[in-house]
Amino acid sequence: MPRSEATEGFKFNHTMIRVKDPQVSLKFYTEVLGMDLLSEQKFDSFTLYFLGYDHSGGKQSAEEKKNTRFNREGILELTHNHGTESDPDFQGYSSGNSDPGRGFGHIAITVPDIQKACARFEELSVPFKKRLTDGKMKHIAFILDPDGYWIEIVPGRIDF
Amino acid sequence: MPRSEATEGFKFNHTMIRVKDPQVSLKFYTEVLGMDLLSEQKFDSFTLYFLGYDHSGGKQSAEEKKNTRFNREGILELTHNHGTESDPDFQGYSSGNSDPGRGFGHIAITVPDIQKACARFEELSVPFKKRLTDGKMKHIAFILDPDGYWIEIVPGRIDF
Repeated sequence: MPRSEATEGFKFNHTMIRVKDPQVSLKFYTEVLGMDLLSEQKFDSFTLYFLGYDHSGGKQSAEEKKNTRFNREGILELTHNHGTESDPDFQGYSSGNSDPGRGFGHIAITVPDIQKACARFEELSVPFKKRLTDGKMKHIAFILDPDGYWIEIVPGRIDF
Repeated sequence: MPRSEATEGFKFNHTMIRVKDPQVSLKFYTEVLGMDLLSEQKFDSFTLYFLGYDHSGGKQSAEEKKNTRFNREGILELTHNHGTESDPDFQGYSSGNSDPGRGFGHIAITVPDIQKACARFEELSVPFKKRLTDGKMKHIAFILDPDGYWIEIVPGRIDF
């Protein structure tokens, strides 16, 4: 199918998921998965956190990271609706992988050494949905983020 | 927060959503949004379609696109569970933005000229969740994909 010239310059910028407790989620996405927090916008009833990997080799300033967050790919936006983190009646968010609510599946992180990456997740007590040794697909794994969203861990190349 | 060296080389590779009818969805993501279909993998009960923008200026071969799909950012994976497209009892997938099932929010596409992009979506009769002129946020829009997933349309830079 021909790509329309009208879409020249389009980029798949970000995926947004809602999180219960931003302190727990930010720790997970920055410390466990190694993303940078690019910007944080607080509104009256919610706060948005934009995260992404630094592929500049540490050369981008905080200001540049913030300014370019809508002009690159691979951004994760976390939405925190204020109060969910301390509300005893809050039921948690759907991961999208059970009924009702099925639809969204997962996000995926490419890693250079999947054995090493998974061994580290084990050391950090990250819950697994599927270890490398589980099931038929021995070359990929699934971990769970603090809200139960599935995160696929993939090597840089899969032949199938 | 310090980024761990153990996450060096990690990339936010893809986001996966389930779609009812791949022919309708592929037409939407390639023709309306301008993504390339990078690869297609058929399994017994489901098929996976990997899409992404070509930022090589058309220089990448089909083989290269397929081989690098797990080693870049900005990939959208569509999962088609065979049969949903013709099943009269199929209820459709949750967009993640209503209860029950709230959790996933949206994906976002960066465009170089948001007025022009939105005018084209209107011409193509793409349904809008929020036009540029709706609400307080006049610099962004939301369209709906064929399954009702929200797609945010953003300019390359937003100052807030």
